[in-house]
Amino acid sequence: MNFKLIFRTLGLLLIVEGIAMFLALIVALIYNGTDVIALCQSALICMGTGGILFFVFRNTGKEMGKREGFVIVSLVWVLFSFFGSLPFILSHTIPDLTNAFFETMSGFTTTGSSILNDIESLPNGILFWRSMTQWLGGMGIIVLSLAILPIFGIGGMQLFSAEVPGPVADKLSPRIQATAKKLWVIYFIFTVAEMLLLWIGGMSFFDAINHSFTTMATGGYSTKQASIAYWSSPFIQYVIIFFMVVAGTNFTVSYLMLTGKFRKAIQNEELKYYLFFISVFTLIIFGGLLISNELGFEQSFRDALFQVVSILTTTGYATADYLHWTPFLTIVLFAVFFFGGSAGSTGGGLKIMRIVLLLKNSYYELHRLIHPKAIIPVRFNQKPVSDQIITNVLAFFMFYFVIFFSSSVLLMLVVPDLPSAMGAVATSLGNIGPGLGIFGPAENFSALHPAGKWFLSFLMLLGRLELFTVLVLFSPAFWKR
Amino acid sequence: MNFKLIFRTLGLLLIVEGIAMFLALIVALIYNGTDVIALCQSALICMGTGGILFFVFRNTGKEMGKREGFVIVSLVWVLFSFFGSLPFILSHTIPDLTNAFFETMSGFTTTGSSILNDIESLPNGILFWRSMTQWLGGMGIIVLSLAILPIFGIGGMQLFSAEVPGPVADKLSPRIQATAKKLWVIYFIFTVAEMLLLWIGGMSFFDAINHSFTTMATGGYSTKQASIAYWSSPFIQYVIIFFMVVAGTNFTVSYLMLTGKFRKAIQNEELKYYLFFISVFTLIIFGGLLISNELGFEQSFRDALFQVVSILTTTGYATADYLHWTPFLTIVLFAVFFFGGSAGSTGGGLKIMRIVLLLKNSYYELHRLIHPKAIIPVRFNQKPVSDQIITNVLAFFMFYFVIFFSSSVLLMLVVPDLPSAMGAVATSLGNIGPGLGIFGPAENFSALHPAGKWFLSFLMLLGRLELFTVLVLFSPAFWKR
Repeated sequence: MNFKLIFRTLGLLLIVEGIAMFLALIVALIYNGTDVIALCQSALICMGTGGILFFVFRNTGKEMGKREGFVIVSLVWVLFSFFGSLPFILSHTIPDLTNAFFETMSGFTTTGSSILNDIESLPNGILFWRSMTQWLGGMGIIVLSLAILPIFGIGGMQLFSAEVPGPVADKLSPRIQATAKKLWVIYFIFTVAEMLLLWIGGMSFFDAINHSFTTMATGGYSTKQASIAYWSSPFIQYVIIFFMVVAGTNFTVSYLMLTGKFRKAIQNEELKYYLFFISVFTLIIFGGLLISNELGFEQSFRDALFQVVSILTTTGYATADYLHWTPFLTIVLFAVFFFGGSAGSTGGGLKIMRIVLLLKNSYYELHRLIHPKAIIPVRFNQKPVSDQIITNVLAFFMFYFVIFFSSSVLLMLVVPDLPSAMGAVATSLGNIGPGLGIFGPAENFSALHPAGKWFLSFLMLLGRLELFTVLVLFSPAFWKR
Repeated sequence: MNFKLIFRTLGLLLIVEGIAMFLALIVALIYNGTDVIALCQSALICMGTGGILFFVFRNTGKEMGKREGFVIVSLVWVLFSFFGSLPFILSHTIPDLTNAFFETMSGFTTTGSSILNDIESLPNGILFWRSMTQWLGGMGIIVLSLAILPIFGIGGMQLFSAEVPGPVADKLSPRIQATAKKLWVIYFIFTVAEMLLLWIGGMSFFDAINHSFTTMATGGYSTKQASIAYWSSPFIQYVIIFFMVVAGTNFTVSYLMLTGKFRKAIQNEELKYYLFFISVFTLIIFGGLLISNELGFEQSFRDALFQVVSILTTTGYATADYLHWTPFLTIVLFAVFFFGGSAGSTGGGLKIMRIVLLLKNSYYELHRLIHPKAIIPVRFNQKPVSDQIITNVLAFFMFYFVIFFSSSVLLMLVVPDLPSAMGAVATSLGNIGPGLGIFGPAENFSALHPAGKWFLSFLMLLGRLELFTVLVLFSPAFWKR
């Protein structure tokens, strides 16, 4: 293991984080808030530490290997969360390390679970930093760094594949930096577009920036304690719905659409299933709300669509408290916790593509029972999917559910009831935000035992890096040689 | 599809069920109960219907195929449960068809969930029939019929493999009838041994027969409303624990033990993991009970061991109400709902072998991440396991959890809370017995909505036939040609 190279790379990335903090500092200066000094200190600590690491470990020797890639990517998310919690701690907005780390990890992993009981009391610079952790984490720390820094050389591929491990339909461009840049340009364009629309719709400019950051990242942090329910305007809610759907779509598909290649874009199989799942769940809940509530046709539809899209894309905004629906509708929505965005989107969770591959493979397994000799490969986008990918997807599901169940059991040590524990684990692992029971959309995680907060932070990281990148570090074989 | 052959075979099997009812009739005659006429009528209806089917469909033509095997096995369990509910209905002990069918399906599938609120009020013949459904179902209707009837010829193999679809470690004897006989002889010996020990321990002879029937079947029906908690004698409880463990062990291993081949028996890898899982869960719960209760050392240990063995082997007897433990301990025990007995035992659930193969394969998947070129086959009992079996096991898990989750969601339509719904689905699918919440070990399923009862009955069948045999009937490809 080339530790020198690892430290040098981490140093470089910390400098990037420091630069990002300076942007928040500018916001703080504009509003002349109480958070100017804290943000300034944090940015300097970040860049100082990063600079020291970068210059001390110079003679790093040979190229970056697969194993270094896994270590760097796992560590950088932890490190970013530690340093990223400095603004909260130093400004005394979240004085406690456990809470500040939870909030920052929840930010970078675009989970959106919060421990804040009075969001509106925070100064604007801090709020901006909080939203920005999500925006940076949404497209990926490594992907960002690859896009802006030409320094990684061939090692970038190792880092990229460790951070974006999902089953990606289209082969990645071998020119990894060009891909990273393209992704960030699309991401940026969508963010600006949403910001303008929200501003036109009546949000303040500051709120519009923050919400476009956290929508496009499928993050879900809001500048208001009441989340999107604060704005009753249907226009604002539909705009956010639209951009949540966009954020959960494969960015390659969005790129095709933006460049006018509509026909090719809508042929994407994952897109079809993604929209299909959204429609089915929306219809069920819409029907249920019509029967059980007296909200009227339009609001029932909007509430159903908003909550389904928000959970399925793993954003986690709320316009309605789904815990006040009938138990059946609440649980239908809880099922949506186990879907997630498309591969190559900022959405987390199990991911639509994996679910479709899984369902197809299970269906074919029945065929194999009747015709044991026949070889029936699973097809996706008209192409046969290799056995290796299928095995990987199946192993992913196994780990996901084993971790989901055993973590829910463990969390019962500090949480009084099963739905709350299961909801907290599902929302952390899926990078969603709100949970069930005592962690519903109208509540937050402030009352959770500190051990539970660290544990959920770990699950967020596991989920964001799609399990394997982190799990492999716990395998003895990884460290042998 | 050769329907004539299907009807003829079903007819033959119904005659077998009628004969079994005559045994219950003998018990009713001995006790001179109110159930004599009902049992007599039921047996005659069974044998009459069977006889008509058997003689009407004579020229069945060609041999039995794979597809006929799936249809017959799925149908025979439904048919047995319909006809098997006649004694309950005709004796007015369970006058309602929904309840009677639920109770009988729960019996044959060795689930043990009950709708009875006053078991002690039932006449002995009916109680005996209720326990016997479990004893017959435990080793399998087809396996029983193969053992006593020489009539099936080569078709027996198709039926056998549809009823015992699990990943069986040791190749089945090609002389399928000899295997079936051997299994039933071992089963019979253990049943008699347990009966004698329970009788010596202070149970009445009648109770001893009934409980040895339902222990060896990992069924869990008791002749007492309080289940095994009725007998406070530690001796009786330890005897039952021992035989539950035996019933959940692969019968091939038991055969080796009975014939003195201890060394070969204890080399069985599944046995080691089976005992390992029992020990780990018992220790956790034992420790938890010591801390949280004041039961004392021996009873804490006995309660923990009894409940873990009862759930893990999917028997479902109760000596303690685990819903009165701390939430954490309750949920640890709920995790045990997802284990199950060994392959080739009467235990249901996911089965130890599948879980071990799954864990091994997931662990190797991490290896494959680091060394993508290396071919590392999963090994079991020192032999490499074929890719086909691994894929099958993974598909089984997928179906199991997809069915578990979607059924829990559906059941929320008639059940007020998530733990109750999840517990009911898990206990039905795993053929265990008691659930969580309103369906705990001190409660029963009588209050459940009829639609829920039919649904759970279906899940019991799915679980007992290990999903595929039933699911394949719903695949369009199955019916094509």
